Amino acid sequence: MRGHGQPEISGSESEEESETMRCISCKVEYGRHEAGTCKECYEEASETEEELKREIEDLKAKVAFLRFWSPLDQLSRSHGGPCYTDVVLVASSQDGPAVPVPAHKAILVSRSPVFKAMLENEMEESRSGAIKISDISYEALRAFVNYLYTAEACLDEQMACDLLELAEKYQVKHLKAYCEKFLVSKLIWDNSIISYAFAHQHNAKHLLDASLSLITDNMDKLTKREEYMELVEKDPRLVVEIYEAYLSKQVNTAAHKDSSIKQ
Amino acid sequence: MRGHGQPEISGSESEEESETMRCISCKVEYGRHEAGTCKECYEEASETEEELKREIEDLKAKVAFLRFWSPLDQLSRSHGGPCYTDVVLVASSQDGPAVPVPAHKAILVSRSPVFKAMLENEMEESRSGAIKISDISYEALRAFVNYLYTAEACLDEQMACDLLELAEKYQVKHLKAYCEKFLVSKLIWDNSIISYAFAHQHNAKHLLDASLSLITDNMDKLTKREEYMELVEKDPRLVVEIYEAYLSKQVNTAAHKDSSIKQ
Repeated sequence: MRGHGQPEISGSESEEESETMRCISCKVEYGRHEAGTCKECYEEASETEEELKREIEDLKAKVAFLRFWSPLDQLSRSHGGPCYTDVVLVASSQDGPAVPVPAHKAILVSRSPVFKAMLENEMEESRSGAIKISDISYEALRAFVNYLYTAEACLDEQMACDLLELAEKYQVKHLKAYCEKFLVSKLIWDNSIISYAFAHQHNAKHLLDASLSLITDNMDKLTKREEYMELVEKDPRLVVEIYEAYLSKQVNTAAHKDSSIKQ
Repeated sequence: MRGHGQPEISGSESEEESETMRCISCKVEYGRHEAGTCKECYEEASETEEELKREIEDLKAKVAFLRFWSPLDQLSRSHGGPCYTDVVLVASSQDGPAVPVPAHKAILVSRSPVFKAMLENEMEESRSGAIKISDISYEALRAFVNYLYTAEACLDEQMACDLLELAEKYQVKHLKAYCEKFLVSKLIWDNSIISYAFAHQHNAKHLLDASLSLITDNMDKLTKREEYMELVEKDPRLVVEIYEAYLSKQVNTAAHKDSSIKQ
């Protein structure tokens, strides 16, 4: 290839020079077949990136403004001053004396339609000012209440499962999506069957799809797993669904191969 | 320009052809001097853009979750159910009977250090459960309270000024920045002197800088303005600051020119 650079200015470059140009972004020379964008598109893309970054800054500031301090912050870090809380949540499955977690009715009602119904319908919780939450640890309850105020939680796998259960029970969609995303990111073959059963039980669609896909990719190893045998015992319908998904995947793959061959 | 096809396959192009390549993004052919990025940087930039967009989606969902319904929504749109409000704000300058705006102490305290001090220090407001806000219209007060819950406001120039005043008085930084940004976007020569004086009065740095810059760019027209003469009467120190800024700009420009000539 010959051609040469900036022909309107210079005509005296060597052949080697003429095949390369310099990337505006990384400053490295590249050949024609490695070409990306023209200058105009590059500049447009840079502007877009700047705009997106500005939008992110604005949104982060908005989150920081809207983020509520939690009454738990107040307790633990001694922000000082009263919290004006008007309700407490109690983890009723606690061994030993249950520590009540203070909260605001207005926040609970705003974040969860279940709390809304509970508190507005003059049920026992509304009269007593205490909401009992069953089958949950104090730590999980604290993290749950904290999330309702701050949209933040420090997750490990156990906590993500506990919070997903609470989020499902009290219909806090944002928290459920947050936990599900975390659990999907932690999916490996070793926890795929347990995750699949858990996702089924708590109606977690993304986690269900991701774990099912992982399982059907490893069908040769499936029947040897202890969790598999337990699931056959405990909930055989879930096992049937695995096989159905596997079958449907096989049919699709076959159809795809078939059409590839015909082409 | 004509050009076509991947040169690493073909070696038979004319010189003209070899000078062009196709932009991956807009698909238009361009010459070497219009080159933007290499392919790798293009792909990296596309990924970055996708990531930024995902982050924006996440942040928007977080804002939607943290956004609180305002007790005013509740009143006007009849969401139904109690609001658990425990304080009212009253625009005390109202002619006629003042309509109280209901709110939650917990929200006010969370958003404004001034409300925090007021309510926590057992001042009159804390005992009576009513906070009087002077020199403000009912509409501005409503918008102010609404912003504390939602981080949203529908602004025109008057409302932006009213809310900036309230934001300054009650130290709601996020709202102040929001109003200031709006007012800067509305700056024109006609309102620059008034904006400058307003920014000075309410300690609005960005608006001050922007209006001062606009004024010093139009010094030839300045002294003919009615607002100028009023400002000389009312607050001559502010006029002095205009001249000082103008002088400093001139000195800088001269220094810049000087160094250009020397080079």
